[in-house]
Amino acid sequence: MKITLIGVGLIGGSIALKLKAKGLVSYVYGVDRNEAHLRNAKKLGIIDEITSLENAVGKSDLIIIAIPVDSAAEIISKVLDLVSTKHTVMDVGSTKSGIVKSVENHPNRARFVAFHPMWGTENSGPQSAVAESFSGRAAVICDAENSAKDALETVEAIARKLDMHLMYMKAEDHDIHTAYISHISHITSYALANTVLEKEREEDTIFQLASSGFSSTVRLAKSHPEMWVPIFKQNKENVLDVLNEHISQLRKFKSALEKDNDILLEELIRNANRIRGILDEK
Amino acid sequence: MKITLIGVGLIGGSIALKLKAKGLVSYVYGVDRNEAHLRNAKKLGIIDEITSLENAVGKSDLIIIAIPVDSAAEIISKVLDLVSTKHTVMDVGSTKSGIVKSVENHPNRARFVAFHPMWGTENSGPQSAVAESFSGRAAVICDAENSAKDALETVEAIARKLDMHLMYMKAEDHDIHTAYISHISHITSYALANTVLEKEREEDTIFQLASSGFSSTVRLAKSHPEMWVPIFKQNKENVLDVLNEHISQLRKFKSALEKDNDILLEELIRNANRIRGILDEK
Repeated sequence: MKITLIGVGLIGGSIALKLKAKGLVSYVYGVDRNEAHLRNAKKLGIIDEITSLENAVGKSDLIIIAIPVDSAAEIISKVLDLVSTKHTVMDVGSTKSGIVKSVENHPNRARFVAFHPMWGTENSGPQSAVAESFSGRAAVICDAENSAKDALETVEAIARKLDMHLMYMKAEDHDIHTAYISHISHITSYALANTVLEKEREEDTIFQLASSGFSSTVRLAKSHPEMWVPIFKQNKENVLDVLNEHISQLRKFKSALEKDNDILLEELIRNANRIRGILDEK
Repeated sequence: MKITLIGVGLIGGSIALKLKAKGLVSYVYGVDRNEAHLRNAKKLGIIDEITSLENAVGKSDLIIIAIPVDSAAEIISKVLDLVSTKHTVMDVGSTKSGIVKSVENHPNRARFVAFHPMWGTENSGPQSAVAESFSGRAAVICDAENSAKDALETVEAIARKLDMHLMYMKAEDHDIHTAYISHISHITSYALANTVLEKEREEDTIFQLASSGFSSTVRLAKSHPEMWVPIFKQNKENVLDVLNEHISQLRKFKSALEKDNDILLEELIRNANRIRGILDEK
């Protein structure tokens, strides 16, 4: 299978490396606005040829769009303009409602599969790509009923080659769940980093004292705005909803502390401890 | 060297394992209210003998107190009642002002060294103890001027055997810094877990979708209230101060989103990204 990879960064690069290693993909056309990324991706064996969208699509069986969700929403229609019934188009974006809406009236809508592999790191660029990234993680396909059967099967085969377990949901439900499970974690982490940078003026002390717990909680705060501003904007209502809840949960801790209410404090912590049982099943 | 280990859990257990492995400690008397922990610690080779405080102290060169900070503050005076100038007493608690205050007028105050190894996990109990836990981490000694020179040297030797780098500060400064670097991370994580447990009623979806980012941010929410309620209480003013700042940082995100203020949103994220430069020096 030949593919066009639009966006040769962390996610696109990791997918290409794995699919090549599995022998499913024989040739990758790389398309990206960032020329340094293209050169790096070629050097790393992620892509085989640097080319333009117009040149690559016709020669490919599958087109993977792995760029920030605002640009993805714009480009998918352009790609669908270029494809026939022999092509499959998939994205990997972290929000889904905006993207499926952007193509809902496109005559080639059925060639598109809305896909989200639940994996990422705070790093970016092709140099961060790792073939084994996705193993054991969830891959979500949204609004599957709007994709052609063969296009869907192609993407399902990709997910299996990535060693992911498939889940199916409506784009709207996906965006609610990811607001809870992923997007709020990023805001929490950013806000925590800003808190510590604001309060702890002695940067050297952060560096010296930072425990593994702090590093773990603040890890996502290293994630780039190019990717995350569009996600927060596209999922604005859900993110605001969960952010309000999060602020209210923090206020409960504040109130318990201020009032020396040990029972409430312990109750809040014991409730949070329930997350162990849920996560440790993994 | 023979030691008495009061509290044979994660921290105490990890210290004993490492000091035995390094040959610095030949015999460990274990004292704990939890009998299952004592039996486990003996089976795991953390302690050599289960005994009482009164029996152990006289036979030991060093007494290490590794129990929650509220109980530690109570027990240190009792231990100091039992020691002579040949003994050294150290704690490992995450808050320091309350502990040094509890012994400030004790006639044997100089035998005590207030110590905090900057390491921990969300797990507890002797079965979680790992000898190599502390390597490369910071070890803080507080109010060193109030400890006898030889007691201080004993604890400094311990820190070196644990492969930690030593820092010296006032107990009050320690509690301010740890509120920023450690305690607020725990509250954030607890509140995030409670947020997701409140909003995401489908526990199976958390389990299926949870990305590595979420797991990392929420990891500390698994930590037990027995340890953390006393820490938050003993460091109440500092924790409230940084918690207020954290809530105000989250409100900035909320406002930027509500007002579609992309420039502010990007600015908040870029500022948070600075944490990468500070942490990655590590």
